[in-house]
Amino acid sequence: LLLSSYEERLTSGCSQVQLGFRYESRDQRFTVYIMQLSNCSALCLPADQKMYVRLAVLPSVQAMRCLFRTRSSLPQEVVEINEVFGMQISHGALRQKTLRVDVCDGSTSGLEECLAGAQISLADISCSEDRCTKWYNLLSRLYMPEISNKDRGSRATGD
Amino acid sequence: LLLSSYEERLTSGCSQVQLGFRYESRDQRFTVYIMQLSNCSALCLPADQKMYVRLAVLPSVQAMRCLFRTRSSLPQEVVEINEVFGMQISHGALRQKTLRVDVCDGSTSGLEECLAGAQISLADISCSEDRCTKWYNLLSRLYMPEISNKDRGSRATGD
Repeated sequence: LLLSSYEERLTSGCSQVQLGFRYESRDQRFTVYIMQLSNCSALCLPADQKMYVRLAVLPSVQAMRCLFRTRSSLPQEVVEINEVFGMQISHGALRQKTLRVDVCDGSTSGLEECLAGAQISLADISCSEDRCTKWYNLLSRLYMPEISNKDRGSRATGD
Repeated sequence: LLLSSYEERLTSGCSQVQLGFRYESRDQRFTVYIMQLSNCSALCLPADQKMYVRLAVLPSVQAMRCLFRTRSSLPQEVVEINEVFGMQISHGALRQKTLRVDVCDGSTSGLEECLAGAQISLADISCSEDRCTKWYNLLSRLYMPEISNKDRGSRATGD
Protein backbone atom coordinates (compact mmCIF):
# COMPACT_ATOMS: atom_id res chain seq x y z
CA LEU A 1 0.00 0.00 0.00
CA LEU A 2 1.58 3.26 -1.19
CA LEU A 3 0.63 6.22 0.94
CA SER A 4 0.90 9.75 -0.31
CA SER A 5 1.47 12.50 2.16
CA TYR A 6 -1.21 13.69 4.56
CA GLU A 7 -1.56 16.96 2.62
CA GLU A 8 -2.01 15.17 -0.71
CA ARG A 9 -4.71 13.00 0.77
CA LEU A 10 -6.56 16.01 2.10
CA THR A 11 -6.52 17.92 -1.16
CA SER A 12 -7.58 14.89 -3.17
CA GLY A 13 -10.84 14.81 -1.20
CA CYS A 14 -12.54 11.57 -0.30
CA SER A 15 -13.72 8.63 -2.32
CA GLN A 16 -17.45 8.14 -2.57
CA VAL A 17 -19.79 5.22 -3.07
CA GLN A 18 -23.17 5.46 -4.78
CA LEU A 19 -25.81 3.21 -3.24
CA GLY A 20 -29.47 2.57 -3.92
CA PHE A 21 -31.97 1.22 -1.41
CA ARG A 22 -35.39 -0.31 -1.72
CA TYR A 23 -37.68 -2.00 0.78
CA GLU A 24 -40.57 -4.05 -0.58
CA SER A 25 -43.16 -4.50 2.18
CA ARG A 26 -45.06 -7.23 0.38
CA ASP A 27 -42.06 -9.57 0.28
CA GLN A 28 -40.33 -8.04 3.32
CA ARG A 29 -37.30 -7.71 1.10
CA PHE A 30 -34.50 -5.17 1.54
CA THR A 31 -32.33 -4.55 -1.51
CA VAL A 32 -29.09 -2.60 -1.71
CA TYR A 33 -27.74 -1.60 -5.13
CA ILE A 34 -23.97 -1.09 -5.02
CA MET A 35 -23.70 1.17 -8.04
CA GLN A 36 -20.30 2.86 -8.35
CA LEU A 37 -17.25 4.31 -6.64
CA SER A 38 -15.84 7.71 -7.52
CA ASN A 39 -12.59 9.57 -6.81
CA CYS A 40 -10.86 6.26 -6.16
CA SER A 41 -7.43 7.89 -6.34
CA ALA A 42 -8.09 9.08 -2.77
CA LEU A 43 -7.83 5.44 -1.73
CA CYS A 44 -4.13 5.60 -2.73
CA LEU A 45 -4.03 2.06 -4.07
CA PRO A 46 -1.25 0.86 -6.39
CA ALA A 47 -2.56 0.60 -9.97
CA ASP A 48 -2.33 -3.21 -9.98
CA GLN A 49 -4.00 -3.72 -6.61
CA LYS A 50 -7.56 -5.00 -6.92
CA MET A 51 -10.27 -3.89 -4.53
CA TYR A 52 -13.88 -4.76 -3.81
CA VAL A 53 -16.80 -3.54 -1.75
CA ARG A 54 -17.90 -5.40 1.38
CA LEU A 55 -21.37 -4.75 2.70
CA ALA A 56 -22.78 -5.85 6.06
CA VAL A 57 -26.17 -5.32 7.72
CA LEU A 58 -25.39 -5.11 11.45
CA PRO A 59 -25.98 -6.22 14.17
CA SER A 60 -26.30 -9.57 12.52
CA VAL A 61 -28.20 -12.68 13.50
CA GLN A 62 -25.86 -15.50 12.63
CA ALA A 63 -28.44 -17.54 10.78
CA MET A 64 -29.29 -14.65 8.52
CA ARG A 65 -27.26 -13.68 5.49
CA CYS A 66 -26.01 -10.21 6.23
CA LEU A 67 -22.63 -10.07 4.53
CA PHE A 68 -21.89 -9.53 0.86
CA ARG A 69 -18.76 -8.90 -1.19
CA THR A 70 -18.67 -7.64 -4.76
CA ARG A 71 -16.26 -8.92 -7.38
CA SER A 72 -12.80 -7.29 -7.42
CA SER A 73 -11.89 -4.38 -9.70
CA LEU A 74 -8.73 -2.51 -10.53
CA PRO A 75 -8.69 1.03 -9.08
CA GLN A 76 -9.75 3.44 -11.81
CA GLU A 77 -10.96 6.95 -11.04
CA VAL A 78 -14.56 5.78 -11.35
CA VAL A 79 -15.39 2.11 -10.82
CA GLU A 80 -18.76 0.83 -12.05
CA ILE A 81 -19.95 -1.99 -9.83
CA ASN A 82 -23.68 -2.51 -10.38
CA GLU A 83 -24.13 -5.45 -8.04
CA VAL A 84 -27.18 -6.14 -5.93
CA PHE A 85 -27.53 -7.50 -2.40
CA GLY A 86 -30.86 -8.61 -1.04
CA MET A 87 -32.13 -9.98 2.26
CA GLN A 88 -35.47 -10.81 3.80
CA ILE A 89 -36.21 -8.88 6.98
CA SER A 90 -39.20 -7.18 8.61
CA HIS A 91 -39.34 -3.40 8.36
CA GLY A 92 -39.26 -3.09 12.16
CA ALA A 93 -36.09 -5.18 12.43
CA LEU A 94 -34.45 -3.34 9.53
CA ARG A 95 -34.97 0.00 11.24
CA GLN A 96 -32.74 -1.23 14.10
CA LYS A 97 -29.91 -2.03 11.69
CA THR A 98 -26.87 -0.19 10.43
CA LEU A 99 -25.38 -0.77 7.01
CA ARG A 100 -21.60 -0.88 6.95
CA VAL A 101 -20.01 -0.44 3.51
CA ASP A 102 -16.24 -0.84 3.19
CA VAL A 103 -13.84 -0.74 0.28
CA CYS A 104 -11.39 -3.58 0.88
CA ASP A 105 -8.04 -4.43 -0.55
CA GLY A 106 -7.95 -7.95 -1.93
CA SER A 107 -4.35 -8.66 -1.13
CA THR A 108 -2.60 -11.80 -2.30
CA SER A 109 -2.04 -12.86 1.32
CA GLY A 110 -5.77 -13.53 1.62
CA LEU A 111 -6.08 -11.05 4.48
CA GLU A 112 -8.90 -8.54 4.13
CA GLU A 113 -7.82 -4.97 4.69
CA CYS A 114 -10.43 -2.23 4.81
CA LEU A 115 -9.28 1.01 3.19
CA ALA A 116 -12.27 3.26 3.73
CA GLY A 117 -15.89 2.94 4.65
CA ALA A 118 -19.30 4.44 5.22
CA GLN A 119 -21.80 3.53 7.91
CA ILE A 120 -25.45 4.18 7.27
CA SER A 121 -28.14 4.11 9.95
CA LEU A 122 -31.30 2.47 8.63
CA ALA A 123 -33.47 4.02 11.39
CA ASP A 124 -35.49 6.01 8.87
CA ILE A 125 -35.41 3.64 5.90
CA SER A 126 -38.63 4.18 4.05
CA CYS A 127 -41.16 1.53 3.13
CA SER A 128 -41.66 2.91 -0.36
CA GLU A 129 -41.21 0.70 -3.40
CA ASP A 130 -39.12 3.39 -5.10
CA ARG A 131 -35.38 3.03 -5.18
CA CYS A 132 -33.64 5.82 -3.33
CA THR A 133 -30.11 6.56 -4.61
CA LYS A 134 -27.42 8.53 -2.81
CA TRP A 135 -23.67 9.20 -2.74
CA TYR A 136 -21.84 8.60 0.55
CA ASN A 137 -18.38 9.82 1.55
CA LEU A 138 -15.96 7.03 2.43
CA LEU A 139 -13.90 7.71 5.52
CA SER A 140 -10.37 6.35 5.33
CA ARG A 141 -9.46 3.93 8.09
CA LEU A 142 -6.18 5.83 8.39
CA TYR A 143 -7.91 8.78 9.98
CA MET A 144 -9.65 6.80 12.68
CA PRO A 145 -6.69 6.39 15.08
CA GLU A 146 -6.26 10.16 15.10
CA ILE A 147 -8.84 10.27 17.86
CA SER A 148 -6.68 9.11 20.70
CA ASN A 149 -6.49 9.67 24.40
CA LYS A 150 -3.94 12.43 23.97
CA ASP A 151 -6.68 14.56 22.46
CA ARG A 152 -8.85 14.34 25.54
CA GLY A 153 -7.99 17.88 26.59
CA SER A 154 -10.43 19.17 24.02
CA ARG A 155 -13.50 18.02 25.98
CA ALA A 156 -16.31 20.57 25.76
CA THR A 157 -14.24 23.22 24.01
CA GLY A 158 -15.75 22.74 20.57
CA ASP A 159 -17.87 25.87 20.63
CA LEU B 1 -18.19 -3.54 31.58
CA LEU B 2 -20.96 -6.07 32.15
CA LEU B 3 -22.04 -7.80 28.98
CA SER B 4 -25.39 -9.49 28.67
CA SER B 5 -25.77 -12.36 26.28
CA TYR B 6 -25.76 -11.97 22.53
CA GLU B 7 -29.47 -12.81 22.38
CA GLU B 8 -30.38 -10.24 25.02
CA ARG B 9 -28.52 -7.58 23.11
CA LEU B 10 -30.32 -8.42 19.91
CA THR B 11 -33.79 -8.33 21.43
CA SER B 12 -33.09 -5.06 23.24
CA GLY B 13 -32.60 -3.34 19.88
CA CYS B 14 -30.04 -0.60 19.44
CA SER B 15 -29.40 2.67 21.17
CA GLN B 16 -30.04 5.80 19.18
CA VAL B 17 -28.74 9.34 19.15
CA GLN B 18 -30.75 12.37 18.08
CA LEU B 19 -28.72 14.97 16.23
CA GLY B 20 -29.51 18.30 14.62
CA PHE B 21 -27.48 19.95 11.86
CA ARG B 22 -27.31 23.45 10.49
CA TYR B 23 -25.00 25.12 8.00
CA GLU B 24 -25.00 28.92 7.88
CA SER B 25 -23.51 30.03 4.56
CA ARG B 26 -23.06 33.66 5.60
CA ASP B 27 -20.70 32.76 8.47
CA GLN B 28 -19.53 29.45 6.91
CA ARG B 29 -20.48 27.86 10.20
CA PHE B 30 -21.46 24.23 10.71
CA THR B 31 -23.34 23.45 13.91
CA VAL B 32 -24.19 20.03 15.35
CA TYR B 33 -26.79 19.78 18.12
CA ILE B 34 -26.23 16.67 20.23
CA MET B 35 -29.75 16.36 21.58
CA GLN B 36 -30.43 13.03 23.30
CA LEU B 37 -29.73 9.32 23.52
CA SER B 38 -32.49 6.72 23.70
CA ASN B 39 -32.67 3.01 24.56
CA CYS B 40 -29.42 3.32 26.47
CA SER B 41 -29.95 -0.06 28.15
CA ALA B 42 -28.73 -1.59 24.86
CA LEU B 43 -25.30 -0.16 25.72
CA CYS B 44 -25.21 -2.63 28.67
CA LEU B 45 -23.41 -0.22 30.99
CA PRO B 46 -23.37 -0.75 34.77
CA ALA B 47 -25.73 1.75 36.47
CA ASP B 48 -22.87 3.68 38.06
CA GLN B 49 -20.74 3.93 34.92
CA LYS B 50 -20.79 7.38 33.36
CA MET B 51 -20.73 7.87 29.62
CA TYR B 52 -20.44 10.76 27.18
CA VAL B 53 -20.72 11.46 23.48
CA ARG B 54 -17.61 12.09 21.38
CA LEU B 55 -18.04 13.81 18.06
CA ALA B 56 -15.44 14.19 15.32
CA VAL B 57 -15.55 15.78 11.86
CA LEU B 58 -13.19 13.66 9.75
CA PRO B 59 -10.79 13.68 7.97
CA SER B 60 -9.40 16.41 10.17
CA VAL B 61 -6.92 19.15 9.49
CA GLN B 62 -4.84 19.30 12.62
CA ALA B 63 -5.09 23.05 13.02
CA MET B 64 -8.85 22.94 12.91
CA ARG B 65 -11.01 22.06 15.87
CA CYS B 66 -12.83 18.93 14.84
CA LEU B 67 -13.24 16.99 18.07
CA PHE B 68 -15.79 17.55 20.81
CA ARG B 69 -16.83 15.65 23.92
CA THR B 70 -20.00 16.26 25.91
CA ARG B 71 -20.18 16.17 29.70
CA SER B 72 -20.61 12.73 31.26
CA SER B 73 -23.99 11.31 32.27
CA LEU B 74 -25.18 8.24 34.12
CA PRO B 75 -26.88 5.72 31.81
CA GLN B 76 -30.64 6.21 32.06
CA GLU B 77 -33.03 4.87 29.44
CA VAL B 78 -33.17 8.31 27.84
CA VAL B 79 -30.32 10.76 28.35
CA GLU B 80 -30.91 14.42 27.53
CA ILE B 81 -27.69 16.01 26.36
CA ASN B 82 -28.49 19.27 24.57
CA GLU B 83 -24.95 20.34 23.83
CA VAL B 84 -23.79 22.18 20.74
CA PHE B 85 -20.63 21.84 18.66
CA GLY B 86 -19.71 24.42 16.05
CA MET B 87 -16.91 24.85 13.56
CA GLN B 88 -16.08 27.21 10.72
CA ILE B 89 -15.68 25.48 7.37
CA SER B 90 -16.58 26.13 3.73
CA HIS B 91 -19.58 24.25 2.36
CA GLY B 92 -17.38 22.56 -0.26
CA ALA B 93 -14.94 21.26 2.35
CA LEU B 94 -17.77 20.14 4.65
CA ARG B 95 -19.30 18.02 1.90
CA GLN B 96 -16.06 15.97 1.83
CA LYS B 97 -16.35 15.22 5.56
CA THR B 98 -17.81 12.42 7.62
CA LEU B 99 -19.19 12.95 11.10
CA ARG B 100 -18.28 10.22 13.56
CA VAL B 101 -20.43 10.12 16.73
CA ASP B 102 -19.47 7.66 19.47
CA VAL B 103 -20.82 6.94 22.92
CA CYS B 104 -17.80 6.47 25.14
CA ASP B 105 -17.31 5.00 28.55
CA GLY B 106 -15.54 7.41 30.89
CA SER B 107 -13.72 4.81 32.89
CA THR B 108 -11.72 5.69 35.98
CA SER B 109 -8.54 4.47 34.29
CA GLY B 110 -8.67 7.49 32.00
CA LEU B 111 -8.78 5.29 28.92
CA GLU B 112 -11.50 6.11 26.43
CA GLU B 113 -13.55 3.12 25.36
CA CYS B 114 -16.10 3.50 22.58
CA LEU B 115 -19.25 1.48 23.17
CA ALA B 116 -21.27 2.26 20.07
CA GLY B 117 -21.28 4.77 17.27
CA ALA B 118 -22.80 6.24 14.17
CA GLN B 119 -21.01 7.58 11.11
CA ILE B 120 -22.72 10.17 8.99
CA SER B 121 -21.59 11.18 5.51
CA LEU B 122 -21.93 14.93 5.03
CA ALA B 123 -21.83 14.63 1.21
CA ASP B 124 -25.36 16.00 0.89
CA ILE B 125 -25.45 18.38 3.83
CA SER B 126 -27.76 21.19 2.84
CA CYS B 127 -26.97 24.87 2.87
CA SER B 128 -30.29 25.81 4.38
CA GLU B 129 -30.46 27.83 7.58
CA ASP B 130 -33.06 25.45 9.00
CA ARG B 131 -31.98 22.91 11.56
CA CYS B 132 -32.48 19.36 10.34
CA THR B 133 -33.04 16.85 13.15
CA LYS B 134 -32.77 13.07 12.90
CA TRP B 135 -32.36 9.89 14.97
CA TYR B 136 -29.42 7.60 14.12
CA ASN B 137 -28.89 3.98 15.17
CA LEU B 138 -25.72 3.39 17.17
CA LEU B 139 -23.81 0.31 16.12
CA SER B 140 -22.12 -1.47 18.99
CA ARG B 141 -18.37 -1.86 18.64
CA LEU B 142 -18.84 -5.46 19.78
CA TYR B 143 -20.43 -6.40 16.49
CA MET B 144 -17.67 -5.04 14.32
CA PRO B 145 -15.15 -7.90 14.71
CA GLU B 146 -17.81 -10.34 13.54
CA ILE B 147 -16.75 -9.53 10.00
CA SER B 148 -13.61 -11.56 9.87
CA ASN B 149 -11.64 -13.41 7.26
CA LYS B 150 -13.34 -16.69 8.08
CA ASP B 151 -16.52 -15.23 6.59
CA ARG B 152 -14.92 -14.67 3.22
CA GLY B 153 -16.67 -17.66 1.70
CA SER B 154 -19.83 -15.61 1.39
CA ARG B 155 -18.45 -13.44 -1.42
CA ALA B 156 -21.09 -12.69 -4.01
CA THR B 157 -23.68 -15.04 -2.56
CA GLY B 158 -25.89 -12.37 -1.03
CA ASP B 159 -28.62 -12.56 -3.62
